[in-house]
Amino acid sequence: MLLRLRQGLAPHELGTVLDEAERQGATTRFLDEGRTLLELTADGRASGFRPGARAAFEDLWAVASVLDASDAPELFATVVPGEAGEVAAKDARFGGGDLSIVAGPCAVEDRASLLEIARQVADAGATLLRGGAYKPRTSPHAFQGLGRDGLALLDEARAVTGLGIVTEVLDPRDVEAVGAVADVFQIGARSMANSALLTEVGRYSAEHGTPVLVKRGIAATVREFCLAAEYVLNEGTSRVVLCERGIRGFDRVTRNLLDLGAVAHLKRATKLPVVVDPSHAAGRADLVAPLAAAGVAAGADGLLIEVHPRPETTHSDGAQALSPAAFADLVRRIETLAPACDRRLVRLARVEA
Amino acid sequence: MLLRLRQGLAPHELGTVLDEAERQGATTRFLDEGRTLLELTADGRASGFRPGARAAFEDLWAVASVLDASDAPELFATVVPGEAGEVAAKDARFGGGDLSIVAGPCAVEDRASLLEIARQVADAGATLLRGGAYKPRTSPHAFQGLGRDGLALLDEARAVTGLGIVTEVLDPRDVEAVGAVADVFQIGARSMANSALLTEVGRYSAEHGTPVLVKRGIAATVREFCLAAEYVLNEGTSRVVLCERGIRGFDRVTRNLLDLGAVAHLKRATKLPVVVDPSHAAGRADLVAPLAAAGVAAGADGLLIEVHPRPETTHSDGAQALSPAAFADLVRRIETLAPACDRRLVRLARVEA
Amino acid sequence: MLLRLRQGLAPHELGTVLDEAERQGATTRFLDEGRTLLELTADGRASGFRPGARAAFEDLWAVASVLDASDAPELFATVVPGEAGEVAAKDARFGGGDLSIVAGPCAVEDRASLLEIARQVADAGATLLRGGAYKPRTSPHAFQGLGRDGLALLDEARAVTGLGIVTEVLDPRDVEAVGAVADVFQIGARSMANSALLTEVGRYSAEHGTPVLVKRGIAATVREFCLAAEYVLNEGTSRVVLCERGIRGFDRVTRNLLDLGAVAHLKRATKLPVVVDPSHAAGRADLVAPLAAAGVAAGADGLLIEVHPRPETTHSDGAQALSPAAFADLVRRIETLAPACDRRLVRLARVEA
Amino acid sequence: MLLRLRQGLAPHELGTVLDEAERQGATTRFLDEGRTLLELTADGRASGFRPGARAAFEDLWAVASVLDASDAPELFATVVPGEAGEVAAKDARFGGGDLSIVAGPCAVEDRASLLEIARQVADAGATLLRGGAYKPRTSPHAFQGLGRDGLALLDEARAVTGLGIVTEVLDPRDVEAVGAVADVFQIGARSMANSALLTEVGRYSAEHGTPVLVKRGIAATVREFCLAAEYVLNEGTSRVVLCERGIRGFDRVTRNLLDLGAVAHLKRATKLPVVVDPSHAAGRADLVAPLAAAGVAAGADGLLIEVHPRPETTHSDGAQALSPAAFADLVRRIETLAPACDRRLVRLARVEA
Repeated sequence: MLLRLRQGLAPHELGTVLDEAERQGATTRFLDEGRTLLELTADGRASGFRPGARAAFEDLWAVASVLDASDAPELFATVVPGEAGEVAAKDARFGGGDLSIVAGPCAVEDRASLLEIARQVADAGATLLRGGAYKPRTSPHAFQGLGRDGLALLDEARAVTGLGIVTEVLDPRDVEAVGAVADVFQIGARSMANSALLTEVGRYSAEHGTPVLVKRGIAATVREFCLAAEYVLNEGTSRVVLCERGIRGFDRVTRNLLDLGAVAHLKRATKLPVVVDPSHAAGRADLVAPLAAAGVAAGADGLLIEVHPRPETTHSDGAQALSPAAFADLVRRIETLAPACDRRLVRLARVEA
Repeated sequence: MLLRLRQGLAPHELGTVLDEAERQGATTRFLDEGRTLLELTADGRASGFRPGARAAFEDLWAVASVLDASDAPELFATVVPGEAGEVAAKDARFGGGDLSIVAGPCAVEDRASLLEIARQVADAGATLLRGGAYKPRTSPHAFQGLGRDGLALLDEARAVTGLGIVTEVLDPRDVEAVGAVADVFQIGARSMANSALLTEVGRYSAEHGTPVLVKRGIAATVREFCLAAEYVLNEGTSRVVLCERGIRGFDRVTRNLLDLGAVAHLKRATKLPVVVDPSHAAGRADLVAPLAAAGVAAGADGLLIEVHPRPETTHSDGAQALSPAAFADLVRRIETLAPACDRRLVRLARVEA
Repeated sequence: MLLRLRQGLAPHELGTVLDEAERQGATTRFLDEGRTLLELTADGRASGFRPGARAAFEDLWAVASVLDASDAPELFATVVPGEAGEVAAKDARFGGGDLSIVAGPCAVEDRASLLEIARQVADAGATLLRGGAYKPRTSPHAFQGLGRDGLALLDEARAVTGLGIVTEVLDPRDVEAVGAVADVFQIGARSMANSALLTEVGRYSAEHGTPVLVKRGIAATVREFCLAAEYVLNEGTSRVVLCERGIRGFDRVTRNLLDLGAVAHLKRATKLPVVVDPSHAAGRADLVAPLAAAGVAAGADGLLIEVHPRPETTHSDGAQALSPAAFADLVRRIETLAPACDRRLVRLARVEA
Repeated sequence: MLLRLRQGLAPHELGTVLDEAERQGATTRFLDEGRTLLELTADGRASGFRPGARAAFEDLWAVASVLDASDAPELFATVVPGEAGEVAAKDARFGGGDLSIVAGPCAVEDRASLLEIARQVADAGATLLRGGAYKPRTSPHAFQGLGRDGLALLDEARAVTGLGIVTEVLDPRDVEAVGAVADVFQIGARSMANSALLTEVGRYSAEHGTPVLVKRGIAATVREFCLAAEYVLNEGTSRVVLCERGIRGFDRVTRNLLDLGAVAHLKRATKLPVVVDPSHAAGRADLVAPLAAAGVAAGADGLLIEVHPRPETTHSDGAQALSPAAFADLVRRIETLAPACDRRLVRLARVEA
């Protein structure tokens, strides 16, 4: 590890750094005469520093910055979820060459429409059903989701279709209830920095094995995004899926700015599966298919697609949900594209049979 | 209210809009032949629509956008906390021409240093002490705060100095415990979109009167910021203070980008007090004073300043905390500036006596 | 066209709008009682308003905003460059189902290395050679390019390889000299808003047929980008290619943020070819291939790739140029991908023969 | 200077760095065993490296980054324009404790209104008149300014009022013509990266002494902004004024995001005067005064204010120009504020007499 210390440190300030180094069993060496470049070596351990080593030094006032921490990788950089880095949930598999599609409505609204969409997306090629029972809303006056009633409807949709359920949890007090239904927990973009929630979900995942899909916050750096995953991994689970869903940009042509450079980077910087949500990125139905294809070409291991049973006669720029027919088209397009990107689209077992 | 509907709506889709209008007791009129511009008038009520009216229409698929909702103001636009729009907490008063300074360390670290800083900032001119017992951290490996022990130390610091306490709550399950100590709840930037937390804090504030200082999220629009306040106000309290602390920018010269245009706008768009946190915006001590002054000149009703008892001999770009001496300089500068900006700096009663 | 006028206009202020409407041969009708929503109809003309109509109204003080200008499309929305929307330059063709790759060094540095790279990229599958003789640099102390000597070297590289030349022009006074060598003018991101340059290049293109590749400015909205193309098109040429090269973001994982949502949108909003520059977007060699693939999947009609004859033993995150071998890999990958995206990779005639 | 070199450099690649060091008369020393941290010392010279030294090393492939160049400051960091860092133009003085106000219309539209505004802003307290004869416009169909006729009108306005003239130059071919009229050249935000223009204007300034006001580009980093000034300074003039006018943000509450952290930083990192344009930042008249005051409090040495002779009965959020009466209010407010910020508002000599 290479640290840049502040200039003109008092002895006791420098001492905090050297003490921490000793606690971590590291030897230290100054590289420059000004004694601001400090090299730390984790002698005793072949594998280098512990995952928390970087944060321990960053926490010290005397440390201006950690210039190089490549020998102190955090969990997100080293944890491998499955044998080939895959995370499975019911019939879905993300990673290790497998590509799965999650589809469904934004929110669970009523039984009839949920079951209708669930059947449609299952037939078209999804393996997981998404749908919010708890909805994070900008305004307290807006619809906040059906809560536990919504969870029960999702449970029923799973029984009927065989799809696994991906659903969001917003409150640490709801983790047990959501976990009883979810095949995959979703941590929404607004909750990415909610450490109490991440910790609670991580604990549940460590105990029950339920995977956790973490969406990138609307203006989170890639490192902040990875460290949100770190909160979950730190509880002892390895079953984390990262989801890029677009970040805040200055242009209104799309709702958010899909950052596929981050996807390509994450596929190199972590062994966790990475999925893309082109629906929230685009914010308009006509751009969902090209952005889904672009996500797969950039390396994504899965897609989250918003589908709504609207009559196809309604053409609107503003709506980001695909009709079932447009979703089926998208699946066919991805099925053609996947092999050219060295990936294989996973289908529901019952459909493949 | 003026709505723009989607084009080519089916009759039942249009029906959802007309039904909602009826529920709200509004009369409707199409302005154009294409029937996409719909004007709603809240006949029966002199004061126009309820605060939730806008969100109710925005929730409808058939509504492309709400073009004008000036007759359906949300609570943040109309609630007046005190007689002159002020919010008081112990000796501090924000708004109505009064300006108060909150100062203290980032995190509560230990008893001795907390009491030392508390005394120093009280002497220099702060009326409230800030300090985190629960710290939101990017990495789970970083120091997460002293928790309940930290709250007890804050309690002691108040008893000793007479300063009120501003401290952050991160988890809805901690609201009672934090409320027992805090004179002002702080909702941090990372929690701005945590609706479960905002609601819980709002309930506590409605019952006990504790003010809630809501920090703007790192990439929140001004409207999203106001609607976070709306979650708190919606529980029946009026004691909300808005805090601009810088948003994410692309330049590294400052840690965040202080958005004083938002401050000036909020002073016109709400009657809630607005405070500025130049420490987190600047991320470096040498820019805290000019940004604090700029905040006051832009209309801020208060300042949050990070202070740490470092020896003044340590000069560092990277550190955002002021030394006690630099903080005392800043208070003198603000005291000179305030009258030129038609405001009055509030002091601790015991100091003024 | 639908205008929103300012409230409380004086009669002579309203008059400026009605006069302009008359000049444009339009009939006017107010939609609301407040007389702020003004509908304009271009009666006499089947095709609606002239391309400049929107700007003429936007220029007026009395007009708060143009709400709908769909009957007054600008040139960028209607101009179709070739029969199928393609732009050809030597053997390259962008658009109409054809995909071409432009490759080469950032700057022309010396004869030997330029000819070496030119041969390598021609062999690997490029049809156009990129290389700057005039370099836009952030610092005046940095290398500014070889100027006319660089142009002569590009001329020689074309003669030797059969590749067409894409090169940047920075100064309106250099348009003739650059035009004498360039098969395609490049307008760099820093020049996107340089209207004097855009106009001069547009004039040259209208006279000589040389295509103009316009790169998106680092923080240009999609509309501003299209209006930069409008300056060129307005001089009477139709041979414009739009290039997305990443916009400024807040994260340092990639140099810029590749906006493929904008690419997908532009393929719907214009009939001009759209190309992607993943090298400047990524800023690191290891992400160029996945972002190039993503660009094609999103709809791009071409790619700009930076190639430099570095030994492959040099591994570096920071370098965005591909080695010739890595470039050849990328071309093979795109060749596999293109048919799955309904496109065909164009090759040099001599190589195909 | 401290360089970080790429890892695994070939001998000839390392040679390019050592050769450049020799050319600059520097001694070199590797700090680490991996030979990636290279320290350079400019032995022979007390003042360290030349202004171009940093760029010379940054240009080399073998250099991954320049970690520390504090002994190789560029001109923008060292040039002191006047005795106390001030730049004067007619009666105006920016810097050295003096604060001047530039006011006027966005564009020169006609003789009568220009002379009217000029008289009004002169009476109210401006010392310089701003107004564009050449206007940079997003659309080629929008009004591009009166050109040479506009310059003649500005010349007349100066003769009548005694105000100096600040006007924009867009094209290097117009520098002579604009220079014949301008007391201060304005380089607009869209031209900040136009090196041909900056160089031409720098030459003119070096010869004739005309100051150059450089506006920050809409998404320019502070370093890019300073290096735009460097292009001008590099031609031999010292009379450069930096102007912060807001950068592109994601919120629509203000037109741009005024970055006063950058202003406070620039006052420390350069000795050049810094002015603020709150009109373009706010984009709405009601926020111009608070942002102007905030700019002065943050350290600005001057203000650019857009004024337009509209009847005060026109109330509009969208309009950024102040009425003459609102401008006179703003001047009074700044006059009160300036002494509290250790600055003095400069007035026209004839008015002071």
